[in-house]
Amino acid sequence: MAAVWYELKHQCKQTGARYGILHTPHGDFETPLFMPVGTKANVKTLIPSEIKEVSEGLILGNTYHLWLQPGDEIIKKFGGIRGFMNWDGALLTDSGGFQVFSLSKIRKITEEGVEFRHHKSGEKLFLTPEKSIEIQNNLGADIIMSFDECPPFNSTYEYMKDSVDRTIRWAKRGKDAHKNPETQALFGIVQGGGNKEIRKYCLEKLMEIDFPGYSIGGLSVGESKADMYEMLEFLKDIMPSDKPRYLMGVGSPDDLVVGAMNGIDMFDCVLPSRNARHGTAFTSYGKVQVKNASLKSSHEPLDPKCDCYVCKTYTKGYLNHLVKSEEILGMRLLTYHNLYFLKTLMANVRKAIQEDRLADFKDEFFKSFGYEKK
Amino acid sequence: MAAVWYELKHQCKQTGARYGILHTPHGDFETPLFMPVGTKANVKTLIPSEIKEVSEGLILGNTYHLWLQPGDEIIKKFGGIRGFMNWDGALLTDSGGFQVFSLSKIRKITEEGVEFRHHKSGEKLFLTPEKSIEIQNNLGADIIMSFDECPPFNSTYEYMKDSVDRTIRWAKRGKDAHKNPETQALFGIVQGGGNKEIRKYCLEKLMEIDFPGYSIGGLSVGESKADMYEMLEFLKDIMPSDKPRYLMGVGSPDDLVVGAMNGIDMFDCVLPSRNARHGTAFTSYGKVQVKNASLKSSHEPLDPKCDCYVCKTYTKGYLNHLVKSEEILGMRLLTYHNLYFLKTLMANVRKAIQEDRLADFKDEFFKSFGYEKK
Repeated sequence: MAAVWYELKHQCKQTGARYGILHTPHGDFETPLFMPVGTKANVKTLIPSEIKEVSEGLILGNTYHLWLQPGDEIIKKFGGIRGFMNWDGALLTDSGGFQVFSLSKIRKITEEGVEFRHHKSGEKLFLTPEKSIEIQNNLGADIIMSFDECPPFNSTYEYMKDSVDRTIRWAKRGKDAHKNPETQALFGIVQGGGNKEIRKYCLEKLMEIDFPGYSIGGLSVGESKADMYEMLEFLKDIMPSDKPRYLMGVGSPDDLVVGAMNGIDMFDCVLPSRNARHGTAFTSYGKVQVKNASLKSSHEPLDPKCDCYVCKTYTKGYLNHLVKSEEILGMRLLTYHNLYFLKTLMANVRKAIQEDRLADFKDEFFKSFGYEKK
Repeated sequence: MAAVWYELKHQCKQTGARYGILHTPHGDFETPLFMPVGTKANVKTLIPSEIKEVSEGLILGNTYHLWLQPGDEIIKKFGGIRGFMNWDGALLTDSGGFQVFSLSKIRKITEEGVEFRHHKSGEKLFLTPEKSIEIQNNLGADIIMSFDECPPFNSTYEYMKDSVDRTIRWAKRGKDAHKNPETQALFGIVQGGGNKEIRKYCLEKLMEIDFPGYSIGGLSVGESKADMYEMLEFLKDIMPSDKPRYLMGVGSPDDLVVGAMNGIDMFDCVLPSRNARHGTAFTSYGKVQVKNASLKSSHEPLDPKCDCYVCKTYTKGYLNHLVKSEEILGMRLLTYHNLYFLKTLMANVRKAIQEDRLADFKDEFFKSFGYEKK
């Protein structure tokens, strides 16, 4: 038995969206789901019992950051990220590839791997597919990622093809280097930017190598939403239906709903927690700038339709005061609320799929959240 | 019946330290106790249920900060600070006087009050004894403070005498302006810097006005510990034994123990939470710089003798990682631990008083914490 496997339970008759169960060594999870990001072995501001309350029990850690601090060898001795941070739920790590390309300005890509400089110290570093997998083996997540290049969405055909061919070779090398396939499921990552032909080619080559799950990388990297949604629609029909599908780094409420409509099972994003630290809350009536003076005297909860701890306990006036005063507690409470909001949203998405009405749900949600109808 | 009254239960035969009960409208508290500081209507990083765990249930709010943001009139409409922050325990507010003198560079003291500039915006502001009490009436704490001047410890005799005379007149004006003596106990503040004669004079004049409790201000403001302890010893025998005694702004572990030995019942200080945010922890074996590289690989708890959530859950290695990574969660966990440490320390102090062995306890504690014997 593979470390992780996907069970398709129902497809929405209105949209084709998938409701299923993701089986992992540390829990079975209803999908589609959103995974909070715990970059540095913690979901910012929260303790594990709270992460449980605001997630399905599956979170993400970042290989790049933890490799550099405190180091994967050290984390391994603590029992991996899960032992280190005292998390008894399930875990996914990325490959570090995205951070190499997004955080490091100076880098050199060779067949062997990527040479780059530490985003703070400037120290010279080298990451290869084998090294990424070795780190991820040490970090010990249930789901791990192939080391890939994330080329710009609108790269030339030639660059994109070369890059994707290398990503495919790196995926194979990573699979060969992977030491714990029985306990850690290695996903392949479909790249190809905005080029459908190359996306399809990449997917097919990865399927030949054979992975227990497939991720979609290189989306939500600056392209328009229309471009992203078009690519998701294209991929929807060609991705294998018996494997989990993970759309990397996507987590705005509209993208989660549209992603689910296009058959995505798993999402992650720093957006809800980062927005929270900057005073922006997601609510049933749209985004709220909590610092806004209009909230100052409000005795109402942030979201009257939300039953999270924050909305049951505090007023908008108090949250406004905390955010305006730059109090850490404000960041903490909004992080909790925003993650809870996405958890609730995804539960509603799953319900709508099972009831064959996800397109209707999308219209209702977009209207209440204040999105233009798309 | 006064809003707040003190019941002396036992005096340590070794030291004369007082064990008693402080009765307030929102709870009866064993003393001596330490009160965590919740400057801006929150104890930084913590929610009320956690504040309960790391305190006796009595905390402090700062009049100056809350007057300026969001404003006492607004807080009044939320049911005072307690309603605003959802705190069902007891509460004390200071008068704002100390912040006017410590935060504001430009100020002018007149008989009427103090004119000063906002410590951030530069806006011109004016605080008087009547205004301070009005704000504190709106903030609604169980215990409130007279508006005083906090003169430098080593002011000239002439300056000190003038200042203290004014502080006494301000105390009387504050008492006259106080609207809710049945629900909020107004304490007088003994000033006088390092001058015993003036301290005694101030105390006697305040006792003539008659307050339900007396605070000691103007200590731990830069003078030596020897100077502070000498003054505490002096005041110990002349303060009224049937009223609570509150030593303002003092909270390092050694000062708490020595303060208790000198008959102090109540303490507050930002030190434990501020230290926490800067990565310093109090432990049974002394202060620990949690960022220190020697902790990096440690699988031990921060303090093996501590039974707080942090010490029961996390390793020194993980806390080192959080602090080194400047994660908010690190600040939160150390704040929790440091406050819990002081809560435990004060529980041990009370036990030692009841067992007539506080001097022995002091020696044991100073030795284990790494203080020089004093």
